[in-house]
Amino acid sequence: MIRLNNDYCFGAHENILKALCQLNNEANPGYGLDEHCKEAAENIKNACASPNADVHFIVGGTQTNLLVISAALRPYQSAVCVQSGHINAHETGAVENCGFKILTAPGEEGKIKASEIEKIAVDYETSVVQEHITEPKLVYISFPTELGTLYSKKDLTQISAVCHKHGHYLFVDGARLSYGLSGENNDVTIEDIASLSDVFFIGGTKCGLLFGEAVVITNDELKPCFRHYMKQKGAMLAKGWLLGIQFNEMFKDGLYFEIGKKAVSQALRIKKAFKEKGITLASDSPTNQQFVIMKDSDLEKLSRKYFYEYEERVDENHSNVRFCTSWATTDEEIDELVKDISEL
Amino acid sequence: MIRLNNDYCFGAHENILKALCQLNNEANPGYGLDEHCKEAAENIKNACASPNADVHFIVGGTQTNLLVISAALRPYQSAVCVQSGHINAHETGAVENCGFKILTAPGEEGKIKASEIEKIAVDYETSVVQEHITEPKLVYISFPTELGTLYSKKDLTQISAVCHKHGHYLFVDGARLSYGLSGENNDVTIEDIASLSDVFFIGGTKCGLLFGEAVVITNDELKPCFRHYMKQKGAMLAKGWLLGIQFNEMFKDGLYFEIGKKAVSQALRIKKAFKEKGITLASDSPTNQQFVIMKDSDLEKLSRKYFYEYEERVDENHSNVRFCTSWATTDEEIDELVKDISEL
Amino acid sequence: MIRLNNDYCFGAHENILKALCQLNNEANPGYGLDEHCKEAAENIKNACASPNADVHFIVGGTQTNLLVISAALRPYQSAVCVQSGHINAHETGAVENCGFKILTAPGEEGKIKASEIEKIAVDYETSVVQEHITEPKLVYISFPTELGTLYSKKDLTQISAVCHKHGHYLFVDGARLSYGLSGENNDVTIEDIASLSDVFFIGGTKCGLLFGEAVVITNDELKPCFRHYMKQKGAMLAKGWLLGIQFNEMFKDGLYFEIGKKAVSQALRIKKAFKEKGITLASDSPTNQQFVIMKDSDLEKLSRKYFYEYEERVDENHSNVRFCTSWATTDEEIDELVKDISEL
Amino acid sequence: MIRLNNDYCFGAHENILKALCQLNNEANPGYGLDEHCKEAAENIKNACASPNADVHFIVGGTQTNLLVISAALRPYQSAVCVQSGHINAHETGAVENCGFKILTAPGEEGKIKASEIEKIAVDYETSVVQEHITEPKLVYISFPTELGTLYSKKDLTQISAVCHKHGHYLFVDGARLSYGLSGENNDVTIEDIASLSDVFFIGGTKCGLLFGEAVVITNDELKPCFRHYMKQKGAMLAKGWLLGIQFNEMFKDGLYFEIGKKAVSQALRIKKAFKEKGITLASDSPTNQQFVIMKDSDLEKLSRKYFYEYEERVDENHSNVRFCTSWATTDEEIDELVKDISEL
Repeated sequence: MIRLNNDYCFGAHENILKALCQLNNEANPGYGLDEHCKEAAENIKNACASPNADVHFIVGGTQTNLLVISAALRPYQSAVCVQSGHINAHETGAVENCGFKILTAPGEEGKIKASEIEKIAVDYETSVVQEHITEPKLVYISFPTELGTLYSKKDLTQISAVCHKHGHYLFVDGARLSYGLSGENNDVTIEDIASLSDVFFIGGTKCGLLFGEAVVITNDELKPCFRHYMKQKGAMLAKGWLLGIQFNEMFKDGLYFEIGKKAVSQALRIKKAFKEKGITLASDSPTNQQFVIMKDSDLEKLSRKYFYEYEERVDENHSNVRFCTSWATTDEEIDELVKDISEL
Repeated sequence: MIRLNNDYCFGAHENILKALCQLNNEANPGYGLDEHCKEAAENIKNACASPNADVHFIVGGTQTNLLVISAALRPYQSAVCVQSGHINAHETGAVENCGFKILTAPGEEGKIKASEIEKIAVDYETSVVQEHITEPKLVYISFPTELGTLYSKKDLTQISAVCHKHGHYLFVDGARLSYGLSGENNDVTIEDIASLSDVFFIGGTKCGLLFGEAVVITNDELKPCFRHYMKQKGAMLAKGWLLGIQFNEMFKDGLYFEIGKKAVSQALRIKKAFKEKGITLASDSPTNQQFVIMKDSDLEKLSRKYFYEYEERVDENHSNVRFCTSWATTDEEIDELVKDISEL
Repeated sequence: MIRLNNDYCFGAHENILKALCQLNNEANPGYGLDEHCKEAAENIKNACASPNADVHFIVGGTQTNLLVISAALRPYQSAVCVQSGHINAHETGAVENCGFKILTAPGEEGKIKASEIEKIAVDYETSVVQEHITEPKLVYISFPTELGTLYSKKDLTQISAVCHKHGHYLFVDGARLSYGLSGENNDVTIEDIASLSDVFFIGGTKCGLLFGEAVVITNDELKPCFRHYMKQKGAMLAKGWLLGIQFNEMFKDGLYFEIGKKAVSQALRIKKAFKEKGITLASDSPTNQQFVIMKDSDLEKLSRKYFYEYEERVDENHSNVRFCTSWATTDEEIDELVKDISEL
Repeated sequence: MIRLNNDYCFGAHENILKALCQLNNEANPGYGLDEHCKEAAENIKNACASPNADVHFIVGGTQTNLLVISAALRPYQSAVCVQSGHINAHETGAVENCGFKILTAPGEEGKIKASEIEKIAVDYETSVVQEHITEPKLVYISFPTELGTLYSKKDLTQISAVCHKHGHYLFVDGARLSYGLSGENNDVTIEDIASLSDVFFIGGTKCGLLFGEAVVITNDELKPCFRHYMKQKGAMLAKGWLLGIQFNEMFKDGLYFEIGKKAVSQALRIKKAFKEKGITLASDSPTNQQFVIMKDSDLEKLSRKYFYEYEERVDENHSNVRFCTSWATTDEEIDELVKDISEL
């Protein structure tokens, strides 16, 4: 069976594992106060052209989202995101469990619009009963989105401008950042994300690490006592250097970016194959996730050889499914799938 | 100036105040453990035909909502309500601040539909990643709604059935219950509400009391340690008998129901006057709140003599406004308004 | 029976009730945005010589405590108080339920010592693993304390100095402030409390009001969005003017201070009677609460005519009980008790 | 330099790393729903003689503590532990941040006494104002404790009996369980812990894993929806099999128990050396942590060659320090230290 159901079903890129093995018998101070974390942070700050950023390493994505939002908001403030946003749809109310309301907007193709953010901000600012509603204070977006789509540099610039005009923090969830940066026609760089947002995170778990997400805080207001929040929320790894080693491996000479490039090129081959076959794409994704609407009979054929992720039933005979490449996908696997699609 | 902007701008019904004055020098045990609270609870249980209910007296509505929901839900569970629901739109994220997500449905005329509740329940039950989403566990509705509309007995019965089929609690916010029960064509009684819901509250603040809401818990699962929650949330009035005295006055011989009857009949006179003048109603409200869409020039005329509540701008020349009667509204005030409407 | 068990078992001082009755039919804007609240706030600011303070009116004490602490602290910060402090011992974990740890010190006679605060501060500041412990950030004291004792002006000045040296807020719970200010040998004024603390509250419920506490915020850092917290925690009274009217009555010509004076003088007569009879005082209280250790046989005699509050068993034949005067206590009641004590 | 400062400064036992490498390219379902987790859980249940237990794998200890306590308690309930308990002293108020109060008892040698638990239970049960205090509902102990000491089987049996008599859950933090079970004169088995407690966890991070703690829930009341809590608190590792593989390696043939045995025997050699030299032990620890009170001049000599953990200053010339062995400590390192101690 060929696994294209998600991008977190294999262990880690071989370099990562090699580094962890090599350093296994090296003693290190705990809780992320070691040299590997320091070096990884330096490499990340360089990659982001953000020498003054604070970088923290967290084990997982939900943890990172709830941490950043908890550190950014006061209880009467709220986070804003698109309806399909990960924090709103897939994290068991983690943000609300920390005490914060999420305000949602419908968006388009999984992306919130600057105009939607503007409207929510103005509704609050012009309210005559402000204390009866929450103050929108942080905008959460994903790059890429849940649908695999990307904000353009223009989109991001507009969103950033609206946020800062209204005193909101912009927080970018980069769980799949590597694949986003290598997206087809993408014009956004990691430096852009660092400079346009107030805080973002660089996803490791889905991009070649065993586990780990690197939070990059560029806005000084969000920096104080972040490690207190980490400890309090159970998000401070005792052997923090395990995260440092992995991120260092990824950022010391650009491996993080290469991984995305390869996986996206593979995903685009799948996309092309579906298009040529006349199979409808559920979203026009330029990244490693391809959502397609397929006849159940076709799906049945593919399912003998491939794992994909079932999203939802579309009609009596069609389903929305995801094919997803990753750092672990081989070109041979794609060759085979492309051939099988063409023969459906 | 004549005050028709809301139903909580005057003190209390004269009987209430008289009772408070008469009993001012009587000593009482604190925290709601007095005879007045006991007697009021008995009268309420009789009115509701719910001899086994637990009755608690709370100072205000937001407090009551957050208390009931906190006592009913575990952290991974969520409350369901219509988009415009009070807990979702007007309480500064109080429910989320207690750690709970709210799932919303669009509804119609301010009312959630049984089919919407069903869909949310089934979505959860059929999810293959249940632990990544919250379990809908409590449905919150208002009677009357934020738009002054009412659920019919059939509506309520269907909603109650769907809730109980899926193991949800049904919670009815009766901040304006008195006006709802006297609504035009209303076929729902307070006994119906008690028997169809698991917990509801009888609003006092907007219905003739100085302040106070009476929570009626009929489902045994929701009864344990409710007073612990009250104390912990700062909702246990030291001089609890002040609430007991007021609710006793309201329920010992039906004053609560009379108050609503008069105010609704006044509101319907206003409604009729607007309709006869051809002025559009924003919602077809059978209760004490009348929302109308008026020309700004007409509004300007009325605003010389009347306070109303401005809701929102509809277009360049029209606004949505609320005229609201209460236990304190006089027939003379209505005579005057009806005349002024007819002369617009 | 004569009620000396607590200071919240009667309604309100007659002036309070009279004012509420007189203004019952006056229409007012809701949520504390009325002229009575404004005027009461002005009178309180004058009494405190704090023209720049923010004043908010809250229904009850637990609510006030959890509100102030929630508005003052970030999640990783903690409140410091004496072991017997009300927030630690009598509020069902209300502060912890808002997410905050309480750090306690043993204290003496119900009072925390400046040196204890200093130690807790220094322990944190010198910790090499600061992120593994909470940052003490607010010191909570009561004036008078749970044992009826009082901080001297020197005590308060030292505590205030330690707090401000270490960046802590000083919060004074004045639930019985009126009785504290009139305490025997007390050298602290309400202006002192306002100038030495960052936020405090003036208790109404136990000092002649039907209900109500007035929060006085003098530190600018604690002022922003306090009303948001009030609404979110269910602590914003719809008919806020009820609080404004009551506090106005108390502060417009000094009634608040007179009430305390009388009740304390009565309590001191009780104290003297016990001392003359050789009955041990459990604490040397200069205020309206007198704690005594009595033979159970004596207690049995008094209990035929008086309500007192039972505190705890001391030994096989002795109990600790409280006799408590209030604004409602009459001199005749005290005459009688003094006589009965002398005849034990 | 020889590292004896803590038991989490090296990577993982070689078998663990080998297993992770071997299985790196195997695809697995996410979120702990894989075969490795299943197999590890079976092995753990066998080791505990608890076929009906639920086993969950968590990344770290603080996370595990806050999760278990959140799943066990309602907001008005509290956790009980010894003053020096990890949840009370070293986790940045994580439990309080989840909304729960911790009630503490002084204990002895780091251990809470059954009689202390009894007193706290009875105080609540006999309180006449129960709703003003929290209900103690869970007792948290560590095996071994923060001071390296151990509860005897008799201790545990008494504590368990008191807990269950009063309806409390008993929760055992086994972050260093491996070292506890191999403690000198220890008469407690892992089966005992499983049968006497309601939930406990088996520490991996400090006992040879890269990271990971295994929660074992034996009380059915604590089982429902634990995975919801995990996801909501950010404690569900995407690549959950990484935990399954590691714990499987430890429990498939008893490696977990061997690790502890060796480390404890090494620690006891250190203890013996200190005793023979007449150096005072700060606690009489039978496990891998040895706390000693040393002259600063002696300490200075040892610090040229050894890392230890500095605990606190005892007097002008003495300090309390910890020497700690682990799965990674070699016998040669101990030989050297024993020699150096003897030559002090």
